Amino acid sequence: MKSRQLRNQNGERTFVLVYEPGEAFQEPLVSLAQENGLGVSQFTAIGAFRKVTIGYFDRERRDYVKLPVHEQLEVLALNGNVTVGEDFIPKILAHVILGGRDGSVRGGHLFDGEVWPTLELLLNESPDHLQRKFVPEIGLALIQM
Amino acid sequence: MKSRQLRNQNGERTFVLVYEPGEAFQEPLVSLAQENGLGVSQFTAIGAFRKVTIGYFDRERRDYVKLPVHEQLEVLALNGNVTVGEDFIPKILAHVILGGRDGSVRGGHLFDGEVWPTLELLLNESPDHLQRKFVPEIGLALIQM
Amino acid sequence: MKSRQLRNQNGERTFVLVYEPGEAFQEPLVSLAQENGLGVSQFTAIGAFRKVTIGYFDRERRDYVKLPVHEQLEVLALNGNVTVGEDFIPKILAHVILGGRDGSVRGGHLFDGEVWPTLELLLNESPDHLQRKFVPEIGLALIQM
Repeated sequence: MKSRQLRNQNGERTFVLVYEPGEAFQEPLVSLAQENGLGVSQFTAIGAFRKVTIGYFDRERRDYVKLPVHEQLEVLALNGNVTVGEDFIPKILAHVILGGRDGSVRGGHLFDGEVWPTLELLLNESPDHLQRKFVPEIGLALIQM
Repeated sequence: MKSRQLRNQNGERTFVLVYEPGEAFQEPLVSLAQENGLGVSQFTAIGAFRKVTIGYFDRERRDYVKLPVHEQLEVLALNGNVTVGEDFIPKILAHVILGGRDGSVRGGHLFDGEVWPTLELLLNESPDHLQRKFVPEIGLALIQM
Repeated sequence: MKSRQLRNQNGERTFVLVYEPGEAFQEPLVSLAQENGLGVSQFTAIGAFRKVTIGYFDRERRDYVKLPVHEQLEVLALNGNVTVGEDFIPKILAHVILGGRDGSVRGGHLFDGEVWPTLELLLNESPDHLQRKFVPEIGLALIQM
């Protein structure tokens, strides 16, 4: 993944990230967030995955159902945010919508994906921090305000 | 819904909105827009609904077909804008894409939804105003420029 | 298409574009990019098409499969970016997700579409430029960093 800072105005930065064929989605983004001490950020990406794991949150089980997909799919929309966890390590939350050969669409919570040939991500930072905390009765880490 | 202003630079504000379990989508956002006198704004959200009403605009009837869905669904993408109507009251226009247990996807114009467990919305304001006006021959309120 | 510049802060501009019934998606956006010498920009739109051509990138053939759709469809999400090509002419890359009468969803790479009744697009510019270059072994023009 190659990244470039497009702007920095009073601590609000915009980054563009361009992924290389075969790279994972999560790790390079977490690294960029850590190395740059990103505040709360929002990102959006388009491109394609050759392999991806999506999920659906099962209310009864208080946990995600995972759906691995081994198929070349267009990334039609990938929206997410960067916050920090209780350990102050950056947490990525992302949802994805994927397009197939016949125009059919699938999607879910994005666990991780393998990019091919590229993923173009734009990230906008705000000069503030938001923290997630695990809420046991729900089963998810929710933003604390 | 809890909100926080993340930035304010020359009248351009960014807000984060975090919805609570069971809250409606529309009303808290309209209230925030009114209380803060929001200029034209654009927002994007991810999270989940336990109940939602989507719509499709029927060209012949010049009106929406409504589709209520009583099901836990991931909010994969929720994109919209805030303008004002002829009465200068904030108008929300939003489209949503929803994900089910098996990765299947549905979507449409978003009438309203009941959040569960959360919806995380980021809103960016521009220091300008845009007004919608109802166009009878189309059947919709369109932005006037 | 009518456009308005909502802000200009140190060369970072935000534009709103409102399309008229029957207009094509691509051409007015390319013209706006050329006339304003847009830096790298990201946009998002909602509205509807009465006709649209989407695509899926076929890895084996190193080319897109085109899927023309002659049907009134909601534009549920339309995300894209503006860069320049090797000829320094603006290049639009956009992916789209479309909603039908029954809430069903299709999507893909967006070749072009015919708007009806409107498409509301917000574009954010960054004061930098990114260039795409055709990579023969992949079959696509990728951003050079």
